[in-house]
Amino acid sequence: MLNIPPNQVAGHQGGKGKLGPLVDESGRFYKPLQGDERGSNELKFYTSFSSDTRIPEHISKFFPTFHGTQLIEASDGSGLKPHLVLQDLSVGRVNPSIVDIKIGSRTWPPEASEEYIQKCLKKDRETSSLPLGFRLSGIQIYGNKESGYWKPERTTMQNLPAEEVKLILKKFVSSNTSTGMYSPPDCAFAATVYGGSTGILSQLLELKAWFEDQTMYHFYSCSILMTFEKGLALEGQNPGGQIKLIDFAHVIEGRGVIDHNFLGGLCSLIKFISEILTAPNEYTTEVSSDPDQKSLISSDNGFN
Amino acid sequence: MLNIPPNQVAGHQGGKGKLGPLVDESGRFYKPLQGDERGSNELKFYTSFSSDTRIPEHISKFFPTFHGTQLIEASDGSGLKPHLVLQDLSVGRVNPSIVDIKIGSRTWPPEASEEYIQKCLKKDRETSSLPLGFRLSGIQIYGNKESGYWKPERTTMQNLPAEEVKLILKKFVSSNTSTGMYSPPDCAFAATVYGGSTGILSQLLELKAWFEDQTMYHFYSCSILMTFEKGLALEGQNPGGQIKLIDFAHVIEGRGVIDHNFLGGLCSLIKFISEILTAPNEYTTEVSSDPDQKSLISSDNGFN
Repeated sequence: MLNIPPNQVAGHQGGKGKLGPLVDESGRFYKPLQGDERGSNELKFYTSFSSDTRIPEHISKFFPTFHGTQLIEASDGSGLKPHLVLQDLSVGRVNPSIVDIKIGSRTWPPEASEEYIQKCLKKDRETSSLPLGFRLSGIQIYGNKESGYWKPERTTMQNLPAEEVKLILKKFVSSNTSTGMYSPPDCAFAATVYGGSTGILSQLLELKAWFEDQTMYHFYSCSILMTFEKGLALEGQNPGGQIKLIDFAHVIEGRGVIDHNFLGGLCSLIKFISEILTAPNEYTTEVSSDPDQKSLISSDNGFN
Repeated sequence: MLNIPPNQVAGHQGGKGKLGPLVDESGRFYKPLQGDERGSNELKFYTSFSSDTRIPEHISKFFPTFHGTQLIEASDGSGLKPHLVLQDLSVGRVNPSIVDIKIGSRTWPPEASEEYIQKCLKKDRETSSLPLGFRLSGIQIYGNKESGYWKPERTTMQNLPAEEVKLILKKFVSSNTSTGMYSPPDCAFAATVYGGSTGILSQLLELKAWFEDQTMYHFYSCSILMTFEKGLALEGQNPGGQIKLIDFAHVIEGRGVIDHNFLGGLCSLIKFISEILTAPNEYTTEVSSDPDQKSLISSDNGFN
């Protein structure tokens, strides 16, 4: 029995005649192979990476497990289509809070077609990618049983200036309910989600150390997914803060050079998270005192 | 008494009716203020940076000391012109080996004019900047008293692939004479120039730690100058390997975000230097076995 994933925050979404990923009850995630070279490139990456003995285990754990490809009935009713069979990252999560962050100030590989480069460059310049080295490309923050999720609009999230991105990353680890998302964030769970020896910052630093050294792959237009379970945090338990890398349609060979584009963006994200941990209650003047700025992040598309 | 600097490897060079920098005998370097906004921007940077109390001393030492501006007779004979008065970085050097490395895969700030952005983007894509995160923009390597300097052409140096950039960075610390620059590099001075607690790698790592944290300045189109004295190395003395940052006409405010573009390029350079230290005698197949490739770096413009 295959279903539409309930917790997808970015990318193509399936159902209602649309092609998108599916999940089953055994913990597998089926991603339709994109028909063009993106599909073949992502398959090539998963095939190469999953059998690459140079990848240490403490790094491969940040990537979804790959189980090959399979022909299954597509979500748009168009019949049997080839899908990548991957680990379902939401297994074990009840009400996950999720943020999808596309890493790198440049989302295009040097060898891409001129048309693709111009399209990406335009978007990189119009969004936070160029100034910040990354952009928020999807988010859902769990409030509580009554309020459900806060899911701000993707298009707005991509374009935020530094102070507002910081505010979102604070809201992500706050105890505010979805309906209270416009109150100042309390960062109640910053220490347990971002901090600590197994927290998200530690994981990002592990990834950074690998990126300072590895010259095998360059990850263009790839995302870091940060997740945790707020329900557990509210009960005082370990909320299981976790990072995973996803979306490898634009990975290319590193050819002896580090992925300085991904690494730069990753270091920028690390700086944001570090600052939140160091000064969780720092007052963010730009956002809370200016009504015009505030409106930027209030284009909420409803709760579910 | 002002003279044309004898050891300039990149940038505008003065003399014979051309406007360029001058040096005096007291250790000062006079750089003509460019008439357009580049001049005013570089002056603004030096003025701000030199009085910025947030810059620790172990970082400010990587920047030329700033002594204000002065009206002096320009090198092109056009009369009194305003010049930046800076520390002459070649003071104390007899026959310095120098490499000028422009850092960052992107040399343009986001706010630049569309014309300037397109010009820089084209050059970044055509040179090593995009693939490597930096490009060699000038080099002189001392051989010995008889052979003098090896000064490969700038235009060629900017476009080298990874393996050849590595070869140049090996030649830089080799005992080969200028006339023997096409023999395999022996990396005789790698350990004393790049390595050690005060060597160039240590200095680059100090700079990297600062760039992971500082959100005050973004350094577009800025260079790291690496220098040392081969004469001293040949005599078994400390060759004084040193890095300095130069060229600040395109520095902008950081606005709370790290300079992920400079940092990424810096980490890429660090990886090259680390690899040379780890495996100085690694055989570089691509270059030494292919005559076409070899010709890329033999467009020598003579010794001096």
